[in-house]
Amino acid sequence: MEAAPAAVVTTTFADRLAAAVVERRSQLVVGLDPRLELLPVELRGDAHTGREAAASAYARFCRGLVDAVCPYVVAVKPQAAFFEALGADGMRAFEEVCAYARTVGLLVIVDGKRGDIGSTARAYADAYLGPRDGAGPLADAMTVNTYLGRDSMEPFVAECRRSGGGLFCLVKTSNAGGADVQDLALTDGSVVWHQVARLVAELGESVVGECGLSSVGAVVGATFPRAVSEARRLLPQAILLLPGVGAQGARAPDVARAFTSGPASALVTVSRSVIYAFRVDGADWRSAAAAEAARLRNEVWAASGW
Amino acid sequence: MEAAPAAVVTTTFADRLAAAVVERRSQLVVGLDPRLELLPVELRGDAHTGREAAASAYARFCRGLVDAVCPYVVAVKPQAAFFEALGADGMRAFEEVCAYARTVGLLVIVDGKRGDIGSTARAYADAYLGPRDGAGPLADAMTVNTYLGRDSMEPFVAECRRSGGGLFCLVKTSNAGGADVQDLALTDGSVVWHQVARLVAELGESVVGECGLSSVGAVVGATFPRAVSEARRLLPQAILLLPGVGAQGARAPDVARAFTSGPASALVTVSRSVIYAFRVDGADWRSAAAAEAARLRNEVWAASGW
Repeated sequence: MEAAPAAVVTTTFADRLAAAVVERRSQLVVGLDPRLELLPVELRGDAHTGREAAASAYARFCRGLVDAVCPYVVAVKPQAAFFEALGADGMRAFEEVCAYARTVGLLVIVDGKRGDIGSTARAYADAYLGPRDGAGPLADAMTVNTYLGRDSMEPFVAECRRSGGGLFCLVKTSNAGGADVQDLALTDGSVVWHQVARLVAELGESVVGECGLSSVGAVVGATFPRAVSEARRLLPQAILLLPGVGAQGARAPDVARAFTSGPASALVTVSRSVIYAFRVDGADWRSAAAAEAARLRNEVWAASGW
Repeated sequence: MEAAPAAVVTTTFADRLAAAVVERRSQLVVGLDPRLELLPVELRGDAHTGREAAASAYARFCRGLVDAVCPYVVAVKPQAAFFEALGADGMRAFEEVCAYARTVGLLVIVDGKRGDIGSTARAYADAYLGPRDGAGPLADAMTVNTYLGRDSMEPFVAECRRSGGGLFCLVKTSNAGGADVQDLALTDGSVVWHQVARLVAELGESVVGECGLSSVGAVVGATFPRAVSEARRLLPQAILLLPGVGAQGARAPDVARAFTSGPASALVTVSRSVIYAFRVDGADWRSAAAAEAARLRNEVWAASGW
């Protein structure tokens, strides 16, 4: 006998996000990228003595940041790599930070850029979007790498349908070197990332919320304003996650066109310039992060035209 | 004052691998892909009661497999996704399994297909190839995703130069859907994965060992024998990691041409058909894995022509 289908989740990620964007009047996501050598002095303490102490400092830093930016953001985006670099201790801190952010009402987008085939892709989807021992999922959405093609993405999309999670698929990344692969010219006159965008648009059709947006979104570097406009056209229902504003050089007005599919149709994600703002102005690290998040929230909201 | 350059590691991954292949007369890698529902009955015990118990069962299963296949393989390839699905408990088991395999003299290739930009890529390289608290690195080599281009790969290559680690860059993956992106036709008459192969070949030039092979290798699906031959031509110094033999349908003779750059110039990686061999023939799980690994080792060695 076939197993009964899993319980249907009625609220899609896209609908949860759309509601949160309007309620909070924010399309800002703050990336949580803790790095030992950049931590505030008061948190360094014995963090250099080993992984367990460092992981504990990361958790305190990120919880403090979550509290500080909470009024100004719609989501946080913990970067898996920095926690993974501390091994299992780091992953414990990562879980704590994700859970804490959800507790205070923020959406959590895990930035791990995972991607693999078959049962391995299912394991990654399960790790971040599936239910855990007597608890909800670790995250609301995750970033994924699309280089392995459609069949590698389907297990992630199936998990989104099942659990109400979301994806942000790498389409056109914010780094200059992304062009080495993503901008290669195809015989049909388009470039590689255009085809990836079309694939992401197709995959997203099965997870469109009542708000008209899909839970399968796309990562597009704000560092390439023309690409942002092209992506908006190729992916009319996708939520675009836009890195590159701030430390990487893009400004909020560069991404205004991303928002033409609605107030929640794009998110600007900023890490260093918010979480390490105290290193520039010397203020308390929480106050500095809050001030920079507030400033960017307003700037992005104004640029979005909503 | 500039920081002094890190200590030079004199043995490259490629040289360590080349020595091990000749000594062990094996080009076989066994993938460690533990899945709860497929574990031997004797290990299931209370593994269904929670993550901690499941992680403990994964560690026992993988340590047992390492012991069983050790005489027949040159490396093991733990798949991060299955451990990550158990959160921090899973990562603790992952670390235990990697350390154990190195203790018994096997090379460890972490299969995580990581990829990101700048300091994030550095964090991933550090997590798997860098030294840890008073210990050596977790792994000898790791799989990486090349979609983000050259500047995203450079931090990984730099870590290989510093610590003597190795990379296996996704070039042409074993799944059918990989063609959606990797086989797109370019205006110069080549396809996307050919360009990625050229990029990988260039990146590898700075990490060539005394054996003549580079520590920057490539993943090429054995499921596409013609692609294996083309990859060998485009990547004359790369070690090709070839998945797809066994459960995915390819056979050892399909990949014979991969070995023309030397006995260690290709590795055949097999997971399910070895680690779950007991489910087919009903034997003790360790004996079944050992027998299948021994059989494949001989088959691959014969096909390699060395």
